[in-house]
Amino acid sequence: MLFRQLFDKQSSTYTYLIADEKTKNAVLVDSVLEQVERDLKMLRELGLTLCYSIETHIHADHVTGAEKLQEATGCLKILPEYTKNNCADRKIKDGEILQLGEIEIKAIATPGHTDTHVAYLINQLLVLTGDSLLIRSCGRTDFQSGNAGTLYDSVTQRLFTLDNNTLVYPGHDYQGFTVSTIGEEKLFNVRFKGHNRDSFIELMNNLNLPYPEKMTVVVPANEACGNIY
Amino acid sequence: MLFRQLFDKQSSTYTYLIADEKTKNAVLVDSVLEQVERDLKMLRELGLTLCYSIETHIHADHVTGAEKLQEATGCLKILPEYTKNNCADRKIKDGEILQLGEIEIKAIATPGHTDTHVAYLINQLLVLTGDSLLIRSCGRTDFQSGNAGTLYDSVTQRLFTLDNNTLVYPGHDYQGFTVSTIGEEKLFNVRFKGHNRDSFIELMNNLNLPYPEKMTVVVPANEACGNIY
Repeated sequence: MLFRQLFDKQSSTYTYLIADEKTKNAVLVDSVLEQVERDLKMLRELGLTLCYSIETHIHADHVTGAEKLQEATGCLKILPEYTKNNCADRKIKDGEILQLGEIEIKAIATPGHTDTHVAYLINQLLVLTGDSLLIRSCGRTDFQSGNAGTLYDSVTQRLFTLDNNTLVYPGHDYQGFTVSTIGEEKLFNVRFKGHNRDSFIELMNNLNLPYPEKMTVVVPANEACGNIY
Repeated sequence: MLFRQLFDKQSSTYTYLIADEKTKNAVLVDSVLEQVERDLKMLRELGLTLCYSIETHIHADHVTGAEKLQEATGCLKILPEYTKNNCADRKIKDGEILQLGEIEIKAIATPGHTDTHVAYLINQLLVLTGDSLLIRSCGRTDFQSGNAGTLYDSVTQRLFTLDNNTLVYPGHDYQGFTVSTIGEEKLFNVRFKGHNRDSFIELMNNLNLPYPEKMTVVVPANEACGNIY
């Protein structure tokens, strides 16, 4: 398996390139519009065919590159089930597996940051957690039908039940971390460690974070798969 | 082997944490002063003992955390042979191997970005290239006794002769790339592909880059291992 973590400094977003080395078929997860040329160049250089552009959720802080990637490569745009939009070529539901040569990409519904958020477990080895579980943190739950109690359940019942050695690759990081493990997050994630469901809800409901600057533009753009033309 | 890539957004610097999982002994390569608390917290959480703080070279764009790390952990500060300073506890020379439990860290002299720069080959699997070889690029050669011809020789004769599958982990990245391979860089690095020694020298001597803002403060600070008190 070819696996590449790519960073957008502006929004601190991680995009993931996953490819089967035999078939050269690839997916991009959580692409960033401004980085599409970079990503296309990498696909060309590595001789990969982009089959799918996948999202963990409708982002509020950056516009997806999905539409632009489809225009350039013909890839299918995949969004989680129940996501509000008419632009997805395919929707993926909880437990569904996307097969990419020898690679299995399994959707795990992890709502809470948004109501339709999913994580992707890759070959039982690593999990792309999007904005559900971040390294030593988690996504906020105060907009886009977010719900702290729901996020607590998703993380503690769906992600923390994965094998402790599962590598955690988040959708963002703001401190310079690139990877963690499920075992590490169970022990050291300050949003969950020492918290029960109620105290987590209280914690999340009192973060008082400012709304993302571009949210009113970015969310509708992402509901259109990044077609902002 | 535990391996973690850590990013400093301000200077786009990668710091690397490498640890032997049996002995729990660890090294940090190219630490950043402003990130020392983050790194110490990670060491504590993972139950690691920091044995060495190592540099690939005297940096011009950020101050090393070496001194602060030594104060906190008692680790030894290691610098490449011939580096001008009196603060290193140990100097490492070309071909020398630092053993960390089952991990072999081999110094490969790669001068050119600076005159005493080294790369570190870890267990023959991955190479920390510092500012000699960057992903699709390379470090500049117009100060700190840099020399374009010397860098060309270092990269083409010392790094490009490693196995094609060797993972390349650079000291910086400005485009959001995290890792590459020697094979990829031989094929796609625009500073080297299609260039001979003379045309590489011409290319490098005409980059006309502005000097790093903090260079006059940072270089003396790094020659003192980051002791800026």
